[in-house]
Amino acid sequence: MTAARTAPGRAHEPGAPQPTPNGSPAPLLWVDGRRADPSRAAISAFDRGFTLGDGVFETMRITHGALFRLDRHLARLAAGAAIMGLAVPDDVPDTIAAAANTAFDLGWADAALRLTLSRGAGPRGLAPPVGAEPVAVLTLHAIPPAEPIAARAVRLRVAAGRRNEFAPTAGVKTLSYADNIVALSQARAAGADDALFLDTAGHLTEATASNIFLVSGSMLRTPPRSCGILPGVIRATVLELAAALHLTAREEVLEPRDLADAEEAFLTSAIRGIAPITSANDRSLPNGAPGPVTARLAAALDDLVARECR
Amino acid sequence: MTAARTAPGRAHEPGAPQPTPNGSPAPLLWVDGRRADPSRAAISAFDRGFTLGDGVFETMRITHGALFRLDRHLARLAAGAAIMGLAVPDDVPDTIAAAANTAFDLGWADAALRLTLSRGAGPRGLAPPVGAEPVAVLTLHAIPPAEPIAARAVRLRVAAGRRNEFAPTAGVKTLSYADNIVALSQARAAGADDALFLDTAGHLTEATASNIFLVSGSMLRTPPRSCGILPGVIRATVLELAAALHLTAREEVLEPRDLADAEEAFLTSAIRGIAPITSANDRSLPNGAPGPVTARLAAALDDLVARECR
Repeated sequence: MTAARTAPGRAHEPGAPQPTPNGSPAPLLWVDGRRADPSRAAISAFDRGFTLGDGVFETMRITHGALFRLDRHLARLAAGAAIMGLAVPDDVPDTIAAAANTAFDLGWADAALRLTLSRGAGPRGLAPPVGAEPVAVLTLHAIPPAEPIAARAVRLRVAAGRRNEFAPTAGVKTLSYADNIVALSQARAAGADDALFLDTAGHLTEATASNIFLVSGSMLRTPPRSCGILPGVIRATVLELAAALHLTAREEVLEPRDLADAEEAFLTSAIRGIAPITSANDRSLPNGAPGPVTARLAAALDDLVARECR
Repeated sequence: MTAARTAPGRAHEPGAPQPTPNGSPAPLLWVDGRRADPSRAAISAFDRGFTLGDGVFETMRITHGALFRLDRHLARLAAGAAIMGLAVPDDVPDTIAAAANTAFDLGWADAALRLTLSRGAGPRGLAPPVGAEPVAVLTLHAIPPAEPIAARAVRLRVAAGRRNEFAPTAGVKTLSYADNIVALSQARAAGADDALFLDTAGHLTEATASNIFLVSGSMLRTPPRSCGILPGVIRATVLELAAALHLTAREEVLEPRDLADAEEAFLTSAIRGIAPITSANDRSLPNGAPGPVTARLAAALDDLVARECR
C-alpha cells in the first residue's frame, strides 16, 4: 500500500482515519456535505439506494490533490441523474473539492473519491416518492501509487451472462451493479481477473468496471455506446490521445473474433488508467501485455494526468 | 389507509411506530435480528447493498400475523443468495417470526414484511470481499386491507427498454432495481400505472414488480423462466389453483400479439395478490377488469390465503 501519511493532530477527531488491519488509513466519509464518522451507520435502512439500487455514482482518481477531468465525471453524473429523475445537489462540487483538499492535506498522493447519489429514504414500493430528498455520499480512500503497467495486466474471460444494450438504464452508472458483481465472481472462479460482457447480439461491450480497446497495427477500436457500454472518462481521453500519437481510433461494433485477431488489447478506468490485457479466454494477446501501442498510450496518459493534475 | 391500531403502551418505546403525516403508523425495523430505531441511520455508507445493489430481498404479505407461503419466499431467497455467493444468516426465520408476531400484537391486520440481505460493508471495488459479514434488514409496514379487485386494476404500457433474459442475475430478486424504477417512471409519465417488459427477443416477461397471466377461454398462460422473469410466489400459487378451478394453465413463450388477443389479463405479486389489467398500450381487455376468470382466481386465492393464514 501507499505510504500515506495521517496529518498530525487529526487522529482523534471524529471521522479521522483509523488504521485498518493492513496498515492503510481508514477511508473518510462525507454525507450531504458534512464529514461523518466512517465507523458509524450513516444511511437509513429505508434509503432507496440500499433497498433498490436507486441512484448513480462516479469514481474518480485524485493525484496530488487534483481530480483528473472532474468536469466530465460531473457531466456524466448529471446525465445519468436526469435519466433516473434525480436532482444533483448544488453543493456536490464543493464537497468534492473539500475531499480533494483533505486528501492533499493528509499527504495522500493517490486517492480514490467516490460520489454516490441516492434517491434517499422512501415509503414501500418501487415508484420514486415525490418528496424524496437525495442523499449525496462521498468516500475517500487512500490508494497505492499507480503500478508499473505490466503489473496491471489482466486475464479476461468472456462472461456467460450478457450486457443488455436495451436496458432502461443502458449507459447510466447506476447503483445497480449486481450483474457486474456476479460476472466478476464467475470470472475469478474460472481463474481470470475480470469478465468481458458481450451484448445480447454477441458484440463486445466492456469489462465489469472498465472499457475495452483493441489494437491492430496503428488502429485502435472500442465498442460504441449503442452496445450498452458506460462512456468512460479515460475511454474518451484515450480516443483523444490517439491522434497525437498518430494512431487511428474509432468506435466500432466489435465481435469476439476481433478480439481473437487483435495484436494488443487494454482496459480503461478512472482509477487504474490503462490496464493491458494478457489473455482473453486463455488466448494470449500476441504483442504482449503491454504491447508497444498500449505502452505508448499509457505513457501519454500518465503525462496528461501529470500535466492536468499539477 | 388502513385503520391499523397502535398497541397502547408501546408508543414511546425506542423504535416504536411514530405517526406519519398521512396517519399510518411508522414502519418498524430489525437489523441483524435486533429491533432498531427506524428514524436513525442503520446502514454503513460502505455497505455494498447501498454502493452496488449487492444483495437480495423478499417482500411478503402478513395477514393476521401469518405469512403466506413463507417457505417459498425463503427458498427463493436462498436460491438467489447462492447465485450471488451470499450466506443467509441462520436467524433470519426467527427474526421474520418476531416481526410477524409484532404485527399481530400491534393489531396490524395487514402488513408488508421486507427482508433485505446485503453483502455488508466492504473495501473499494466490485469484487466481493472474503470476510464480508452480510447484513439482514427487516422492515415492517402496516398496509391497507386488500382492496376490492376492481380497485386494483392497472393500465399497462409496454416498456421501451427490455428485460435481459441473459443477465448474470436473471431470475434473482437482487437489490439492483434501477431498470425497473426507470421503466415504472416512464410508464407513469405516459399515463399508465405500470410497465410491461419484453425480453430482448421481444417476448412478454413481467411488469416492474409482478408477473403477468393472459386468459383466453379457460386457458391461462404466463411467460416461462427462460424469458428472464422472477418466479413469483403468487404466480406459482395461481398455476396450482387453476387445476382446482378446471382451468388449463401453462408456462409459454408469449408475444405482444398474445396480449393483444387475450380476453383477460392480470398481474400477480405477494402484496397485491391478483390485479386485473384494464388495458395494455391503451387497448382495453375485452372481458373487463376483472374478467370472470380473473375474478374466480382472485376469490380462490383469497380463500387459500384465509385458510393458510388463519
